[in-house]
Amino acid sequence: MSVELAVGVDIGGTKIHFALVDDEGKLYHQEIVRTESRKGAVVVLNQVLEGIERMCLAVPAYTDREKLRGIGIGSAGQIDFATGRVAFAVDTLPGWTGTRIKEEVSARFPGLRVIVDNDVNVQAIAERRYGAAQGLNSFVCLSLGTGVGGAVVENGQLIRGTFGGAAELGHVSVDFNGPRCSCGNRGCLELYASGTGIVRLADERAAAGLYEGQTDSRSVIKGWLDGESSAAAVMDVVIAALSTATSGLIHTFNPQAVIIGGGVSEAGEPLLTALRSETALRTAPAMWKAVQIVPAAVGIQAGVIGAAAQIWHYA
Amino acid sequence: MSVELAVGVDIGGTKIHFALVDDEGKLYHQEIVRTESRKGAVVVLNQVLEGIERMCLAVPAYTDREKLRGIGIGSAGQIDFATGRVAFAVDTLPGWTGTRIKEEVSARFPGLRVIVDNDVNVQAIAERRYGAAQGLNSFVCLSLGTGVGGAVVENGQLIRGTFGGAAELGHVSVDFNGPRCSCGNRGCLELYASGTGIVRLADERAAAGLYEGQTDSRSVIKGWLDGESSAAAVMDVVIAALSTATSGLIHTFNPQAVIIGGGVSEAGEPLLTALRSETALRTAPAMWKAVQIVPAAVGIQAGVIGAAAQIWHYA
Repeated sequence: MSVELAVGVDIGGTKIHFALVDDEGKLYHQEIVRTESRKGAVVVLNQVLEGIERMCLAVPAYTDREKLRGIGIGSAGQIDFATGRVAFAVDTLPGWTGTRIKEEVSARFPGLRVIVDNDVNVQAIAERRYGAAQGLNSFVCLSLGTGVGGAVVENGQLIRGTFGGAAELGHVSVDFNGPRCSCGNRGCLELYASGTGIVRLADERAAAGLYEGQTDSRSVIKGWLDGESSAAAVMDVVIAALSTATSGLIHTFNPQAVIIGGGVSEAGEPLLTALRSETALRTAPAMWKAVQIVPAAVGIQAGVIGAAAQIWHYA
Repeated sequence: MSVELAVGVDIGGTKIHFALVDDEGKLYHQEIVRTESRKGAVVVLNQVLEGIERMCLAVPAYTDREKLRGIGIGSAGQIDFATGRVAFAVDTLPGWTGTRIKEEVSARFPGLRVIVDNDVNVQAIAERRYGAAQGLNSFVCLSLGTGVGGAVVENGQLIRGTFGGAAELGHVSVDFNGPRCSCGNRGCLELYASGTGIVRLADERAAAGLYEGQTDSRSVIKGWLDGESSAAAVMDVVIAALSTATSGLIHTFNPQAVIIGGGVSEAGEPLLTALRSETALRTAPAMWKAVQIVPAAVGIQAGVIGAAAQIWHYA
């Protein structure tokens, strides 16, 4: 019983995932609770503290108590990495902005190392240690879920910017005349290449009599895979917008890989194939030769695994 | 006569600028030659070597010979910083791709330190040491000239990517349905916010009977500043496209500043004011509060000054 473990915590707007994880990304004990986001930041923070407490109590079942190496947390929102404070969070976690996660957790669990970062950043760490980015020093992660999240590793380091807001790649525009986004910009990637983006495009076409059937993103993707032309017309727009963003990211970062994850990416190889062909057309040849577009490999537990992995990543 | 000097060389498609520069960015001796780009890479490289030779011969007029600290070079194209080799250059310098600048210069001037980087990267170094980015660790430079060049400093370091191709910001798209660019992509920033982009937009409108007068970029900008409505209609598109890109860069890098340079930026404060108002509308408030959009401050000699400044920057 001498394995080293870390507590991983993945804080999202709908659920909080806790786990005991070793430095090979293996889960020993886990628990998922529904985020009481409506009740405000104090309640959510308390959920986090109590969940960590339960993980700590579970440690002796798996290893010696002193083998708990620390607590790694990934949270939705923009995180100031140095202070572990939420610099900005959207309305999926009301009041979360300003929460001093690192400080509060450290106060409750003295003697344990606490590291806090953005949820997509920790997924990038998981991909680097255990997944599609092993051995890579320069890569971009795009997480295509309800929205679009991003993380960028350049020269082996996550880019963070001034206060930890960097790599908000869902709010890079691909159409300066496009529809207005909640962020203020027009034509943001998130309006096309996310679950809600796909629904928006399908609804728009349905209203114009150009789309039939369910407009939820799973149905649209299934229709596209089944060769339905009205679903294909929607996905053509999704793929054009996404490949334009991917090309822009390649021209911006000259990365070794662009890693595609999130719910939408469950469309799998057909989506990746279409994305590769269209991005190839839109990218300068020297840049294109140097890069691969690959699926995320760690899977749906990448959030909690990456959160814990920070403890070894920053050792 | 004890000032320390470096040779700075700025290699562009139309001219090569040589200078002796001190570590405060002051020029002591300089020479500009027309680039014999049509004659191919060997001839151009020879021009570079001979120009450096003349700078070395001029040193004793300004300082003791042993006070020459090195040779800093900025070149058009994508430069592999570690090897000082041209990874990729466009047709303004035919055959330049593959040229081993650092190796050749080092062989000819043994005992002198030689550093080679991309021309916009060295301008970013000049802005950081002597210009608009003093004290900043996170900023983006956009150079709006014939094309659009970029450089990004994140956490105090220039981003480079896999082979030095990073920050090709002119080829980030702002319209996924836009016109095809030479790079393969559609709607690249360079098609709108460069000298040639402005001409293209004005020509397009002139052909449709919507624009009168000269369509060169200087005339369009002057017409806009003079309140001519047909020129203003062109510049509205330029500003919308540019602010969309600026917003995207702010969401990507969460920088402290976006620094605007290049010939187009000579439109001055009215352009910056318009760019600021439009970018403010298109940027998430937390990101916008953290950033300033400012003009480049080093001026037209930033290329040669930044080239030389590498010698102290990487000391």
